Amino acid sequence: MNYPNGKRSASVFKNNNLYSHQFGNRGMSLEKDINDTNAYYLETNKAVIHKKPTPIQIVKVNYPKRSAAVITEAYFKQASTTDYNGIYREKYIDFEAKETKNKTLFPLANIHQHQIDHMEAVVAQGGVSFILIRFAVLDETYLLPAEKLFTHWNAQLNGGKKSIAYETIKQQGYFIPFQYKARVDYLTIIDKLYF
Amino acid sequence: MNYPNGKRSASVFKNNNLYSHQFGNRGMSLEKDINDTNAYYLETNKAVIHKKPTPIQIVKVNYPKRSAAVITEAYFKQASTTDYNGIYREKYIDFEAKETKNKTLFPLANIHQHQIDHMEAVVAQGGVSFILIRFAVLDETYLLPAEKLFTHWNAQLNGGKKSIAYETIKQQGYFIPFQYKARVDYLTIIDKLYF
Repeated sequence: MNYPNGKRSASVFKNNNLYSHQFGNRGMSLEKDINDTNAYYLETNKAVIHKKPTPIQIVKVNYPKRSAAVITEAYFKQASTTDYNGIYREKYIDFEAKETKNKTLFPLANIHQHQIDHMEAVVAQGGVSFILIRFAVLDETYLLPAEKLFTHWNAQLNGGKKSIAYETIKQQGYFIPFQYKARVDYLTIIDKLYF
Repeated sequence: MNYPNGKRSASVFKNNNLYSHQFGNRGMSLEKDINDTNAYYLETNKAVIHKKPTPIQIVKVNYPKRSAAVITEAYFKQASTTDYNGIYREKYIDFEAKETKNKTLFPLANIHQHQIDHMEAVVAQGGVSFILIRFAVLDETYLLPAEKLFTHWNAQLNGGKKSIAYETIKQQGYFIPFQYKARVDYLTIIDKLYF
């Protein structure tokens, strides 16, 4: 399980010698890479984009004297939106990130209907929405605009394929090259598509 | 303690007879009112604005067979951003909400430096940022633009007052009248200020 990786831990992580492998990214989780990228965007005043905290249903909390409240019973809840949002060059940015071990396709089961609903509402308000998909075994990350995702989603609802082929993502999406500082430099794609 | 009140519970809440008191709002928490307002904005396709989940540091998780994972030790973390964000009429919206029982002033101790830093970064990117302040005893809610808040915050850092007077908030902020459906209809103020 990966927990939200704040700015502080992302900075520590940069000094980790895993980062000395400049020519590859293998083994790093997509979430860590995005958090690190967002921290870099924030430090350089490029964008303000954060991962939302994991939603938790809290059931029991103890309040011991002279120490912090302890949550002793809680459950993971399904998120009602996407994981990441923020602002870049006056635009509202909203996206989901998914990793798959599959080498030939991205299973749509990774996405939920309420996330699609949310992304549709964002696009209707004039926001920029997309999904970052990493093929972990291939070590390749793509940005697929929400509008393309909706087409595949709706096809699935009408009895179509339950996945998007890797080749289709290569054609309809945008490959994000690995960068040293902005690990998953998705905003360069947004620059090309929206400005 | 108030936990995030999702769309579902907000809808249930609307049917609660507390809502039959059309001429007052006393006793309802600001967070509940905002969540309800955001749910109404979402249902009517007016805006997509959500409260972020409360950040939790998870320490221990049990995985019982045939049932959901149980978090058995976790702690509340300080949020690194504001509580609410989203999109309205192509604009990025980002705000914090605070309630005070004080009748004559709003103590700046309710705000943290990292929240000010975040709001400043949002404004620098061209986003709309503000704080909603409720004087609970007076049952009055105001929108104070981030730029005004920064002035008071910086004055405090330079040895000035540790609070903003109620009268100052009345002058520099915008009173939000209680509405039946959009309980705290802050977007009407945004319409006036930005469009």
